Amino acid sequence: MKKIVYRGPIFNVEEWKLPKTGTKFARVVGHDAVAVLPILDDGRIIIEKQYRHPLERYLYEIPAGHIDEGETPTAAARRELEEETGYYPKKLKRIFGIFEAPGSFTQFLHVFLAEDLVQKKISRETDEVITTIKISLEKAQNMILRNQICDAKTISSILYYSRFKSK
Amino acid sequence: MKKIVYRGPIFNVEEWKLPKTGTKFARVVGHDAVAVLPILDDGRIIIEKQYRHPLERYLYEIPAGHIDEGETPTAAARRELEEETGYYPKKLKRIFGIFEAPGSFTQFLHVFLAEDLVQKKISRETDEVITTIKISLEKAQNMILRNQICDAKTISSILYYSRFKSK
Repeated sequence: MKKIVYRGPIFNVEEWKLPKTGTKFARVVGHDAVAVLPILDDGRIIIEKQYRHPLERYLYEIPAGHIDEGETPTAAARRELEEETGYYPKKLKRIFGIFEAPGSFTQFLHVFLAEDLVQKKISRETDEVITTIKISLEKAQNMILRNQICDAKTISSILYYSRFKSK
Repeated sequence: MKKIVYRGPIFNVEEWKLPKTGTKFARVVGHDAVAVLPILDDGRIIIEKQYRHPLERYLYEIPAGHIDEGETPTAAARRELEEETGYYPKKLKRIFGIFEAPGSFTQFLHVFLAEDLVQKKISRETDEVITTIKISLEKAQNMILRNQICDAKTISSILYYSRFKSK
């Protein structure tokens, strides 16, 4: 029997006892999420440099965010991409999905490939500190190799695209 | 000012207010972790099929676990590999590192490449339900493509190795 022991603004925590040993266990439960790999017509990738409050540092990441109540993953992907980069995707396709931290986090993240991008205006959430860079797939891979990109979903997405999707 | 609002067996939760908007924010704070990509002499990868209590399902993953108090990442990687697969690595090298879920999780995970593996006895933790499979790099990539492998650190590690490390 799982019991909610913490209710927070972004996630809840549930506790229960493991069947064999009776050891107390806990998990973090929150909304599922989406991430979007945006590819420009010239092949460059749009990457964000975002301040991550929990880490107290900047990270290079692809656009991502939680799926709102009642929203489809596709709608969330389109919304997050527009909010964070100002681009609207005429082509948007789910390519894979990941558990980010399955040892304690139930969240599942859907990864989308966004192409045929049309520039619009940015309407960013107030607490987000984001700038974007546009880099080639080769440069992105070099940033992974030098540990300048160290976000799991971003590394997965870039290498997945490089291995399975790019021409 | 961050305040601990939940203390648990595996992680704590801290809350604070964001500077600009005063919005309440929360983060999960736990020990950093390691993951190990074990490569056999014939090139096959050792992958675990592990029951993940938080997800209530099995996942295919590379060996991984938390770094104990006072332990180095390298020692943790060696220990987790032995505990979960029964193999001791004569060659063990850190290849990259990732934040698994930077939106709310401070945990950093170091990924190691383990080679020259020597088989030993398994001494597994009681609550872990793990079996292992040994598969080629090609088969592992096919499992990613079919979404049979859907763990972020495992996808990152296999594709990183495939792109940058394999001969």
